[in-house]
Amino acid sequence: MTLMQLESFAAGQWVAPSGKVRKIYSAVTGEEIAEAGSDKLDFQQMIDFAKQKGGPALRKMTFHDRARMLKALATYLNERRDPLYELAYKTGATLADSKIDIDGGIGTVFVYASKGRREMPDAHIYPDGDLEILSRNGTFLGQHYCTPLLGVAVHINAFNFPVWGMLEKLAPTLLAGVPAIVKPATSTSYVTEACVKMMVESGILPEGAIQLVMGGTGDLLDRLDCQDVVSFTGSAATASYLKSNQNIQKNGVRFIAEQDSLNASVLGPDVTPETPEFDLFVKEALREMTAKAGQKCTAIRRMIVPDTQVQNVIDALSAKLAKNVIGDPTAEGTRMGALASLDQKKDVLEKAAEIGTECDLVFGDQDNLQLNGEGLENGAFVAPMLFHCKDPDKATIVHCTEAFGPVATVMGYRDLGHAIELMNKGGGSLVASVITHDADVARELTMGAAAWHGRLYFNNRDSMKESTGHGSPLPHMVHGGPGRAGGGEELGGVRGVTHYMQRTAVQGSPDLLTGIGGTYVKGARFKEGPAHPFTRTFHELEIGETIKTKSRTVTLEDIEHFAHFTGDTFYAHMDEEAAEANPFFPGRVAHGYLLLSFAAGLFVQPDPGPVLANTGLNDLSFQKPVSPGDEVRVTLTVKRKTKRTDEYGEVRWHVNMFNQDDEQVAEYELLTMVAFERT
Amino acid sequence: MTLMQLESFAAGQWVAPSGKVRKIYSAVTGEEIAEAGSDKLDFQQMIDFAKQKGGPALRKMTFHDRARMLKALATYLNERRDPLYELAYKTGATLADSKIDIDGGIGTVFVYASKGRREMPDAHIYPDGDLEILSRNGTFLGQHYCTPLLGVAVHINAFNFPVWGMLEKLAPTLLAGVPAIVKPATSTSYVTEACVKMMVESGILPEGAIQLVMGGTGDLLDRLDCQDVVSFTGSAATASYLKSNQNIQKNGVRFIAEQDSLNASVLGPDVTPETPEFDLFVKEALREMTAKAGQKCTAIRRMIVPDTQVQNVIDALSAKLAKNVIGDPTAEGTRMGALASLDQKKDVLEKAAEIGTECDLVFGDQDNLQLNGEGLENGAFVAPMLFHCKDPDKATIVHCTEAFGPVATVMGYRDLGHAIELMNKGGGSLVASVITHDADVARELTMGAAAWHGRLYFNNRDSMKESTGHGSPLPHMVHGGPGRAGGGEELGGVRGVTHYMQRTAVQGSPDLLTGIGGTYVKGARFKEGPAHPFTRTFHELEIGETIKTKSRTVTLEDIEHFAHFTGDTFYAHMDEEAAEANPFFPGRVAHGYLLLSFAAGLFVQPDPGPVLANTGLNDLSFQKPVSPGDEVRVTLTVKRKTKRTDEYGEVRWHVNMFNQDDEQVAEYELLTMVAFERT
Repeated sequence: MTLMQLESFAAGQWVAPSGKVRKIYSAVTGEEIAEAGSDKLDFQQMIDFAKQKGGPALRKMTFHDRARMLKALATYLNERRDPLYELAYKTGATLADSKIDIDGGIGTVFVYASKGRREMPDAHIYPDGDLEILSRNGTFLGQHYCTPLLGVAVHINAFNFPVWGMLEKLAPTLLAGVPAIVKPATSTSYVTEACVKMMVESGILPEGAIQLVMGGTGDLLDRLDCQDVVSFTGSAATASYLKSNQNIQKNGVRFIAEQDSLNASVLGPDVTPETPEFDLFVKEALREMTAKAGQKCTAIRRMIVPDTQVQNVIDALSAKLAKNVIGDPTAEGTRMGALASLDQKKDVLEKAAEIGTECDLVFGDQDNLQLNGEGLENGAFVAPMLFHCKDPDKATIVHCTEAFGPVATVMGYRDLGHAIELMNKGGGSLVASVITHDADVARELTMGAAAWHGRLYFNNRDSMKESTGHGSPLPHMVHGGPGRAGGGEELGGVRGVTHYMQRTAVQGSPDLLTGIGGTYVKGARFKEGPAHPFTRTFHELEIGETIKTKSRTVTLEDIEHFAHFTGDTFYAHMDEEAAEANPFFPGRVAHGYLLLSFAAGLFVQPDPGPVLANTGLNDLSFQKPVSPGDEVRVTLTVKRKTKRTDEYGEVRWHVNMFNQDDEQVAEYELLTMVAFERT
Repeated sequence: MTLMQLESFAAGQWVAPSGKVRKIYSAVTGEEIAEAGSDKLDFQQMIDFAKQKGGPALRKMTFHDRARMLKALATYLNERRDPLYELAYKTGATLADSKIDIDGGIGTVFVYASKGRREMPDAHIYPDGDLEILSRNGTFLGQHYCTPLLGVAVHINAFNFPVWGMLEKLAPTLLAGVPAIVKPATSTSYVTEACVKMMVESGILPEGAIQLVMGGTGDLLDRLDCQDVVSFTGSAATASYLKSNQNIQKNGVRFIAEQDSLNASVLGPDVTPETPEFDLFVKEALREMTAKAGQKCTAIRRMIVPDTQVQNVIDALSAKLAKNVIGDPTAEGTRMGALASLDQKKDVLEKAAEIGTECDLVFGDQDNLQLNGEGLENGAFVAPMLFHCKDPDKATIVHCTEAFGPVATVMGYRDLGHAIELMNKGGGSLVASVITHDADVARELTMGAAAWHGRLYFNNRDSMKESTGHGSPLPHMVHGGPGRAGGGEELGGVRGVTHYMQRTAVQGSPDLLTGIGGTYVKGARFKEGPAHPFTRTFHELEIGETIKTKSRTVTLEDIEHFAHFTGDTFYAHMDEEAAEANPFFPGRVAHGYLLLSFAAGLFVQPDPGPVLANTGLNDLSFQKPVSPGDEVRVTLTVKRKTKRTDEYGEVRWHVNMFNQDDEQVAEYELLTMVAFERT
């Protein structure tokens, strides 16, 4: 069998292994399958290529352009999963494991494609938070904006998820508008390489948007500056080594680390074997021990259960583990495959032995491991091992030593405070789960433990059918954790995109902020359009285009009529004396909804035209009561435009309502859909 | 004259200087004025005191409680500024300088007090971002929450702002619910000490909320973990030294650094001496060179002006600098005082000399410095120095060497691209300003330069009356910058508070999330109240309390009637054929505002009662059209309660509108004010 020659992708060229070549072995059979090496790569050339080609090409696109690019990419990969599954078997992964890795990675790209279009503007600049009013008359304002970093993202990924590990970083990076250099862990990098080849072949990404290093990173980190980001996943030791790189420190290079984590799962004090939560706890624990053969940075390592339930949990989980078939991931019946390499197997057995010095092994027998399949003698198979820690207060190893395989420990707690103490003894984790049906337990654990954990996963009978699993980082939620877990954050929707952007506080006049952000800022000059805005198409409408309506008097008859028509006979509208006694009103006042309705009556152009529908309304505030006899008038200003389909887009309007004294009585943002063409 | 013996405040005790004592000198006269030393402080005891006393006491309070505490503190200090001004003269500060420091610091506390109440909930947990829908049926959801870190904040502050430097960090820290240990720079620490004494005497802060180190930090940093934060302001060299502390690295201690910055100010290409922007540029430049004698981390160091305007700027600025009276900050007529110490004077003169090796000195004469006042021979006075850099592309020192005094350099640019290049040559800055009246210039500079700068300050004729100055960090906007500026962020409103909190991704059922966050989450169980909610007081209303209204049929007559009454005769409501042609509607449909109005008619209880007023509405979306003959009904659920005054609070309601097929047609959040008592 010829070895796979794993190629780097540098400055637009595929480059064969060079220099000192490292051999890669099948996790299942132990046979040599591939070679990789990157000694002769020119890392400065790769950085320059990213900065000169990839960055500018990506930054020319809007967030929506890049989101559409991600959707196309995910769709393309989704149709080509089979060859990736085939390769992944050699990493020891079952098909179920690969679905976590490959389908999970593609799914993450789909979510970012969707969030990019729903939650970010169709623009080059992302507003962060609200406008800040910095002056009395509003001539000087502040707005935070995020803009893409002008450098390159270096992704250093772990061996356990060769596809998800790449795509979960790549999706937010590309959406931000930043090119990436991907460096997978060598032992499973052949799966990553195959996936990158597909992406490059697709032609969907602009040149320079992605490069690949198959081997070591050489002097790459010495060449970065504050416009670059390193996003690292792996061991604390490696993270610490890389982070202390002098150039990283000196140049303030952003360094996101996701490293070790002694994740805990807590069984609530309300749970007994008779409640549905007990089985749920055991089921989640089993899955976390055996999926990916326990090689997940989010897997449960410590099960923290009421003292009274310790034996019940050990018994139930042991019974399930006994049925867990281990062996060739392609063989029928196999539920758990091999670790990714013999090095990993050695490491896991060593760490388990360390844990064994202070905890009792209650399930697992590596010496009599039964394997399903043939030719597996040299594979990296490890038996699931369950420990019991009798004195978790005195124990130290179990709270700080991660055996990165199918290894976990059960420990008992006395009361909730004790459970919190044990959870936090991990020194910072990626995720802790709590199986409880009691909202008070959930609140108390959150207040006591949230600061030590990047994610808290609650589950019970209400959510178990739809819950996504203790160990599954979702693109919507941040992934990362304090302390031992590395102190970094990834994913979390748009938060993950901003990790590749610089947030800048921008101050200036309303006109300048409108020009910078492409969104109308209150106080900026109005533009007069050539016709009523409802007769103008999406593309014709300009930011700042405004109509000022004529006035309408609100009469007492209007108020009474509206009250009886709608049924809203609230006393503030109907009873002068009672209304006067109310601290907000001078006497009877018009209904807020009457004002909104009159406003629409004032600004609507009734004939068919490009404005198709009013789809919603935001941030409505009523600022001054309108009394019978008052007049109201409205200004309607184009605030922001966002394409939604090939036929129409969303136009947000800034609406101000004034009374006869030019005092503002209400303000809101109106959402409409506007067609691209007149019909 | 007896020397001030500067006391640390450790574990609730004032502790006199101990161990190796450092002497502190007046910046104005050079005489010895104080002694400080912290060698014998027990730093572990201080940490324990903060964690065991200060943290728990602060965390018992809600964000609003802590905001009120900050307001009381700011009010207390505001009435006691005079003795602080007196002390500050000895640091070389004029009264105007001290207003920046002392009034500016107190003002920052006021802003945080206000933002805490307006932008944070009256609760112990802060929701970050929106609910994430993680399941089809909504039984499993996600929400990010921030909770206070369980450790201590260590604030290491710079000498230039002994009061603001402390308060701008203390306000967000205390609002977060985290105790602080403050370590001011020794040379001006007597002002800080006096301010801390006031705060402690006020009795406003709980025990352990603040401690003070007057001297070195000893082994303090070796004792921190991931629940602690170091917030450092000072030189890049010191930051790098502290950051590389092994314990900081190993334990993932958060380290926020705000360090050197070669801040630039750009004169727009649209500006000539005939436009108001020219004078504005010169005025801001003068202020930045001379306020605090140029000892501001945000001061302008590099003036980047069109080649054609270089001489005009030099001439205009030199003329102004010539009128700048330097001397005793208490003497009448003095506009600029001394640097904070002779060490600083030496450093600034050395750095200016370095700059002088590649730039021409065009204004300034240290050898013939005229001083206003008596006995100033040994003071730390430095003459303002203006340099001209003829070849800013070749120059290197001017882009990386900060003379932390009244020193700046003018350089010319050819075009906007060149200006951007020069701005970014600073390697990352806290702030860059741009004086322009052209929105296109503003946009182009933002896209090209924002990623290198923490703040971009635009100013022109429209905003100059209300603008707050290039060099003024405002509590509303982030302060910090990438690269050379340290890569940190402070302030920025609630963002600054979250620097002292952990963001945790929380997943679970709607009931559990409602219990954790204290805010009704869609899908959680409804609670039936004992009476109509409009008859219930603020305190009686429970989160989740719901009424379901009866149904009302929407008739074609209703739609026509409403159209003619309000004037909203939009064709989708009036013309069957035209409405059918619209992609959103099946035919004529009810007005959105008609539905809102009918909803109110369905849920309002008309009699006087605790519900006082509808003040607004958020996130309204119309999801399904309502046709003539459809029925609508509403559920109204208590979502969140926030006390606003001593008499009433805001109640936010979650409103869902359904049709006769139980399909949701609209959803929104309704804001009301509800009284504490029945009248």
